[in-house]
Amino acid sequence: MNNYQNLEQHFRKIANLQHLEAISSWDQATMMPSGGNSARGDAMAALAVLIHQQTTSPQLGEWFELAAQESLEPLLQASLREMHRVWQNATALPEDLVQARALATSQCEHAWRTQRANNDWQGFAPNLAKVVDLARQEAQVRSAQNGLRPYDALLALYEPDMSCAQIDTLFDDVKSWLPGLIRDVEAKQASNGTLVPQGPFPIAQQQSLGLEVMKLLGFDFEHGRLDISTHPFCGGVPTDVRITTRYDESDFMTAMLGVIHETGHGRYEQNLPKDYAGLPVAHARSMGVHESQSLFFEMQLARGAEFTQVLAPMAARCLGREADPAFSISNMHAFNTRMKRGYIRVNADEITYPAHVILRYEIEQALIEGKIELDDIPALWDEKMQSLLGLSTEANYRDGCMQDIHWSIGLFGYFPTYTLGAMYAAQQFRAVEKAVPQLREKIARGDLTEMFAWLQKNIWSKASFLSTGELLTSATGEPLNAAYFRQHLERRYLG
Amino acid sequence: MNNYQNLEQHFRKIANLQHLEAISSWDQATMMPSGGNSARGDAMAALAVLIHQQTTSPQLGEWFELAAQESLEPLLQASLREMHRVWQNATALPEDLVQARALATSQCEHAWRTQRANNDWQGFAPNLAKVVDLARQEAQVRSAQNGLRPYDALLALYEPDMSCAQIDTLFDDVKSWLPGLIRDVEAKQASNGTLVPQGPFPIAQQQSLGLEVMKLLGFDFEHGRLDISTHPFCGGVPTDVRITTRYDESDFMTAMLGVIHETGHGRYEQNLPKDYAGLPVAHARSMGVHESQSLFFEMQLARGAEFTQVLAPMAARCLGREADPAFSISNMHAFNTRMKRGYIRVNADEITYPAHVILRYEIEQALIEGKIELDDIPALWDEKMQSLLGLSTEANYRDGCMQDIHWSIGLFGYFPTYTLGAMYAAQQFRAVEKAVPQLREKIARGDLTEMFAWLQKNIWSKASFLSTGELLTSATGEPLNAAYFRQHLERRYLG
Repeated sequence: MNNYQNLEQHFRKIANLQHLEAISSWDQATMMPSGGNSARGDAMAALAVLIHQQTTSPQLGEWFELAAQESLEPLLQASLREMHRVWQNATALPEDLVQARALATSQCEHAWRTQRANNDWQGFAPNLAKVVDLARQEAQVRSAQNGLRPYDALLALYEPDMSCAQIDTLFDDVKSWLPGLIRDVEAKQASNGTLVPQGPFPIAQQQSLGLEVMKLLGFDFEHGRLDISTHPFCGGVPTDVRITTRYDESDFMTAMLGVIHETGHGRYEQNLPKDYAGLPVAHARSMGVHESQSLFFEMQLARGAEFTQVLAPMAARCLGREADPAFSISNMHAFNTRMKRGYIRVNADEITYPAHVILRYEIEQALIEGKIELDDIPALWDEKMQSLLGLSTEANYRDGCMQDIHWSIGLFGYFPTYTLGAMYAAQQFRAVEKAVPQLREKIARGDLTEMFAWLQKNIWSKASFLSTGELLTSATGEPLNAAYFRQHLERRYLG
Repeated sequence: MNNYQNLEQHFRKIANLQHLEAISSWDQATMMPSGGNSARGDAMAALAVLIHQQTTSPQLGEWFELAAQESLEPLLQASLREMHRVWQNATALPEDLVQARALATSQCEHAWRTQRANNDWQGFAPNLAKVVDLARQEAQVRSAQNGLRPYDALLALYEPDMSCAQIDTLFDDVKSWLPGLIRDVEAKQASNGTLVPQGPFPIAQQQSLGLEVMKLLGFDFEHGRLDISTHPFCGGVPTDVRITTRYDESDFMTAMLGVIHETGHGRYEQNLPKDYAGLPVAHARSMGVHESQSLFFEMQLARGAEFTQVLAPMAARCLGREADPAFSISNMHAFNTRMKRGYIRVNADEITYPAHVILRYEIEQALIEGKIELDDIPALWDEKMQSLLGLSTEANYRDGCMQDIHWSIGLFGYFPTYTLGAMYAAQQFRAVEKAVPQLREKIARGDLTEMFAWLQKNIWSKASFLSTGELLTSATGEPLNAAYFRQHLERRYLG
């Protein structure tokens, strides 16, 4: 075996352990009784150590050095690059920093669960301070290694090939038109009398609906399943994708759109290239590209007027509401495109969502690069919420800067990927429209074959062979252009 | 740390991996979609290799040598003994034999699935021959290491502290009275007109019944759950015990008694000593002792006339059959104690079951020790079935020597543990009767507290601190005495 092949074999071994990590983690969220948690935590931690050890195994350095001199065809070069990226990310941090971070984030997350409920910023701040301090150290160490700006060094863990400089430009543009758009949509929607579907919607019926929608959206049940968890996610492995949702008897829409969202993630995973299974190059390209698939399914497709012609009657049938006017196509479309300013990111609609992301991005970027300190966060949050959404979070930490789990668990550089995903999705949908004649008519008939073939060919099968910029250019003919996102919103909400 | 503590730490690490192995294996049998199987198989195999590597890690030899010289309190001495046993069993075989066995059993099991269905002994024999050859080699290697007879060296993997010599005596005794007992019970039951409960019994109702019975039997749902699988089992880990059943709409009884059986296994697991969690000394004592708990629950308790007074009305209520005469206490007891000679071990009642086990034991013992060859099996099977149960399996391999999976996957020395378990259970139940005043009246009222307290104190909490012989003697006052098993059968079926 040459050195590249040694690396392949080694990374496929690691993938076997990651397979069991993914399934055990899914089980923990969906099946495990509460009393099993402590021993499971120990077992998962032991596995994480093993995976880390294998990813940082001393022999890898030499293999990478020698493999770089081997003559490899382009696909294998990409594979080598992605293995190297995983290895670099894993080896960059000294062991004591990894351990200190694990301890601080575990304590901070634990404290956050009660301190958020108690609106206790004073109690929370010292816990978060430790996490921020370690995140700054991590950013410095990674930055010294890869030459990126400190924040970019963290961002690269989730969205390689992206930088503050690009995001600043993109988000500044959004800030220039978003408040105006929000006002216009608000004015337009003030007059319409949308009916809110009234429950109860029995969970068994909601589940049937979810499964039927997944089937229509091409989810492969030979290689995946749908279950219930408190926080919906897409987990498992490409050959066995586990998506989850949660049900509320008074509201079927959140679960239905949630299932559609996770199905977007799931189809990406299920259609990653099988020949390279287990290798980093066969992973999804980035968090932003992953989110682009879930948002393509949920926002571009499912909340669109055309697909509502399929979805509304299907929901009415599964829920026994054929005669309910709230389930008419026009009302359901109006219901699914309501816009409402609010405090909470996870409840936000697709127009106000970017405001929540921009706010967090600006704060965390300044925080990591030392331009602001922890104590500045509440005032900045309030100021930015006022400016972007006209809402005050003064003294309301629970619904302000303490609402998300991300910072507690050390996720800095992750938030922008949500809005990058929305932008990628809008650009991709526009490209599909150009590529597929009468796309909107086909969608309205439930004929999604060509749309999925486009995604398969241009996104899913490409995995991590291309950089995100190359992927988008090869798929849509140009690099990221946020104008498509704006056009999408204006067309849907003001058109 | 002293050497004992080094060993403890090492074995707790292994337990963390075994935790994930147990959960992934449960998932494979209950949740995994079929398309996930290939990658899961790879992942599980990789984990098995890791566990084997860690169990045979070179440093352990020295730690064991030095720990033997350390002054340890008796509980730790037992813990050291059990770690050593696990290590010896794992290190005994040369790597090439382990690999050859894995390959041969995997091929043989795969072939068996179709060859059994086709009654194809001629096709199957060469596959089984490889497995038998390797099992004989394994028996020789283990025998050379521990000085036991070859068959005993395999038996010790499942039932340490037991030997052919003891089993021969026990089983010869059973053979002296069993055929007569079968004839007498047959004569006695010929006249009664037991009603067979008629389905359909909706699965949701059967599941409610199963959960209610588990609750009554003290299963801890904070540390376990009930699911569905093709082959019922008790899996998971002590803090998270996963039992399974399968449902048949035309027959609720098999699932109900199956759930009770697995609950017996499950309570043993849930009540193993927590202070020693993860160490071999905290494992169940043996396969036979494990089976004694499931058979205590299913045979001693649940098929008894007293517990039927609780179970029959509960089943009638959960299944909506309060007015059905088949659910009367007397009919249900008669139904649950029907005896019928048959070809298939897993369908056998508690009287004829030992005949199936004795037959297999005699054949596999002679086979492993080279007294017979593979080609002798069908004729021997037929002869022994004729002699024990009066049934011929001539040319009927499917319902004869090809019915079980055990030999295909290399399990030689396992079969006797089923009947040893039945004997242990009868002796334990008799001891509980002596220890708990008016036990049968209490059982009839559903008051199982003292019975469970006895099992907790005398069996569950003892884990592997004692040998099986010591365990039985400390619990019941004497070593294994098969007379209790005979008395139990005669009292229940002829009394």
